[in-house]
Amino acid sequence: MSLDKALATADESKDESLAELVEELRIPSISTLPQHRDDCRRNAQWLIDRFEALNFETKLIDVVDGGHPVLQADWSVHNNAPHLTIYGHYDVQPVDPLDEWDSDPFDPKVTDDLVIARGCSDNKGNHMATLRAVTAWMRAGGPPVNVRFLLEGEEEIAGRSLPEYLRANAPELATDCVLLWDGGFSTDDSPALTSGLRGMLYVEIETTGAVRDLHSGFGGAAPNPAMTLARVLASLKDTDEHVTIPGFYDDVREPDPDEVSRWRRSEEDELKALFGVDTLVGEKGFGVDERLWVRPTLEVNGIVGGFTGSGMKTVIGAKALAKVSMRLVPDQDPDVILAALDSYLQSMATPGVRVTVRKLEAAPPVLCGYDHAAARAAAKAFEDAFGRPTVLVRSGGSVPVATAFNDAIGAPMVVSGIATKDSGAHGPNEKLYLNNYHGGIEMLIRFMQELADTRS
Amino acid sequence: MSLDKALATADESKDESLAELVEELRIPSISTLPQHRDDCRRNAQWLIDRFEALNFETKLIDVVDGGHPVLQADWSVHNNAPHLTIYGHYDVQPVDPLDEWDSDPFDPKVTDDLVIARGCSDNKGNHMATLRAVTAWMRAGGPPVNVRFLLEGEEEIAGRSLPEYLRANAPELATDCVLLWDGGFSTDDSPALTSGLRGMLYVEIETTGAVRDLHSGFGGAAPNPAMTLARVLASLKDTDEHVTIPGFYDDVREPDPDEVSRWRRSEEDELKALFGVDTLVGEKGFGVDERLWVRPTLEVNGIVGGFTGSGMKTVIGAKALAKVSMRLVPDQDPDVILAALDSYLQSMATPGVRVTVRKLEAAPPVLCGYDHAAARAAAKAFEDAFGRPTVLVRSGGSVPVATAFNDAIGAPMVVSGIATKDSGAHGPNEKLYLNNYHGGIEMLIRFMQELADTRS
Repeated sequence: MSLDKALATADESKDESLAELVEELRIPSISTLPQHRDDCRRNAQWLIDRFEALNFETKLIDVVDGGHPVLQADWSVHNNAPHLTIYGHYDVQPVDPLDEWDSDPFDPKVTDDLVIARGCSDNKGNHMATLRAVTAWMRAGGPPVNVRFLLEGEEEIAGRSLPEYLRANAPELATDCVLLWDGGFSTDDSPALTSGLRGMLYVEIETTGAVRDLHSGFGGAAPNPAMTLARVLASLKDTDEHVTIPGFYDDVREPDPDEVSRWRRSEEDELKALFGVDTLVGEKGFGVDERLWVRPTLEVNGIVGGFTGSGMKTVIGAKALAKVSMRLVPDQDPDVILAALDSYLQSMATPGVRVTVRKLEAAPPVLCGYDHAAARAAAKAFEDAFGRPTVLVRSGGSVPVATAFNDAIGAPMVVSGIATKDSGAHGPNEKLYLNNYHGGIEMLIRFMQELADTRS
Repeated sequence: MSLDKALATADESKDESLAELVEELRIPSISTLPQHRDDCRRNAQWLIDRFEALNFETKLIDVVDGGHPVLQADWSVHNNAPHLTIYGHYDVQPVDPLDEWDSDPFDPKVTDDLVIARGCSDNKGNHMATLRAVTAWMRAGGPPVNVRFLLEGEEEIAGRSLPEYLRANAPELATDCVLLWDGGFSTDDSPALTSGLRGMLYVEIETTGAVRDLHSGFGGAAPNPAMTLARVLASLKDTDEHVTIPGFYDDVREPDPDEVSRWRRSEEDELKALFGVDTLVGEKGFGVDERLWVRPTLEVNGIVGGFTGSGMKTVIGAKALAKVSMRLVPDQDPDVILAALDSYLQSMATPGVRVTVRKLEAAPPVLCGYDHAAARAAAKAFEDAFGRPTVLVRSGGSVPVATAFNDAIGAPMVVSGIATKDSGAHGPNEKLYLNNYHGGIEMLIRFMQELADTRS
């Protein structure tokens, strides 16, 4: 049977799988640093070469001026098999502070159970596992599904290239399942599927008073935009951390009780330790998972106004600015929330001070589901490969590319990966467990078969 | 009579008085710019040379490392005449934006009725008028009072040199009257005495939450110090602009009704035009002069926290900081207010967020009085020189050096000067009316006589 042959092939070629990952990890594809611009393209080309060796049709597409190219690789031979699209990214985070690394971030260190290098978890280990799964299938006669890779080079810089590419080419990119393979295991080291991502509305709120900064001796006569901004922000939530924008919660959908019962819950103590605080803060009446996953929140992300240097300056600033983001949940609509926020803010202006709001980003929440065929296939493949039940989680964060896939392609989505909570992604000494890498390759081989079996 | 001779001498030497001012105005004594450090000392030395030519005993004192020297010049020949101390400063503000000047700020432009140059009003025109008054008196046999000049080079940078010098040498600096000659006429162009200056308590309020900046996907679990800071600041005043710190108003002294009746009141329309707003803002129940002069205020001078660059970053900052100053009035004590603020702030901490306060500066309010002998002498001299009644005002600002004189020397104080409201001090095209300069010289000649007459 082809599945057995693919699994046996993967098992026999573990050294080769590791060597290929190590080779990619040597490329310093830091997308945010101009001096690594050529390395990003070199990494994309290195992947193109591998896909071509596997008989994929490949394209390297420059979508946005000054951006990094989108890589598309297609292998489509079946007339009546499902089509799987795999998402990943070839760019990595910067490595500073470099002196906190115990080894060279771009000279991978391999131990009995680990590889340590920038990008090993985020995302090269993840996407190389998918490429190695396809390699094993090719040696067993070819994957049982049609496969498309869409790898971007701007994940770490929230670039526009892939979202624009998806929206511009939606009909040609139709697929039966999108595997967003940039995540990891749950906090208890179980394979995990993310069934939903919060959306986001990110705005700037600006308050403006006098036409110029004034001497603070005019206190008692001059309007103070910084004080008005403080009042506005303080009014956006009550002391129960409940957002006070009228209608804010109107469209919030209760999660399915069946989904809730399957959640792998967070450990409050772990979050407290991560934050370094002795108490968690959130909307009264809800547990921490509900607050992070299925309740909308509002946070001040930044604030600035008046004199902010060291020492003192007796000034009343002419304006002040806050960056405020709301994490949204199904079925909240960012445009509806923005309109409600805007009219609410207008009601909070104080004499002599104008309040304006500017939208910086809006992404609707994404529900991936957990009981569609692709999700069931992924859960089963994980369990068979790792011998542990697959748990369900949601993400408190937002993944703009998930919104783009959802909007443009609309196929069932599986959001997962093989990184662990201690991977150190974005930090020094980023690591990936070899067990997760090779187990991930097995899971992906099995997932393709499970997905193919849904059609038979 | 000597007074007549002094006045005649001043009248005959107007060209010389103007030429001497113009010469000083050519020295770019910008105290805040390191490249003008030598110019500051050169200006001080230039003044020393003039005082020595007038037979003053002079000292140039370096008080603080890296500071600009204090200039002391003494002329003391009378055994039974009052002693007058004259305060001024030889440093000036920077000149940027230079392209808004219509002429070179350090190449004085003299018209029929004006001189235009950086420092002409603030403070070279002021202190040169005092020096020219003394010059005229010398040619008439000498001033009828003993005179001490204390000129500093750090007024524009709120330096510590003169306050430290005053406190360290208080006994030797005993005097009968301090003329703080760094002010100007009232908004209706009347000669004006300032009968009181507000004090100041300037603090930093810091809120701290998690041990590091967190991804804002943790909104719903993580404490947000920027939001807590907004709540704290918003709580410090109610919507009537009344400060809510417990006990804040307990020691506020009502101004004397006689003084209030003599006030030259502000023009609200002028303030609105200056600020560029259509409404003035202040404590409910009080007129704008009361709010600026005899009521304490609280202002946010600066605020910063989280991400403040362009665009967006999904972060919950680990801390946030506000600079907050309170203008204090008699008999408020900055230390008492600070203690009340501190305990009030502690009551406003939210779960997971600490609130701390740090004092940056405290200066008690200063009451100069308006009916002591020196004030009456100054008012009479102004009226004789300018032919207009002298009005009373207070200052909404704080003058740290006034506090230092008050604390260390404790003599009756006269706060005034010859600048006009349209002088453009600190801005481009700073100007001084020649009529005010020469009238000021006459006033100062007369003031010395009036002061001497109080002893006879």
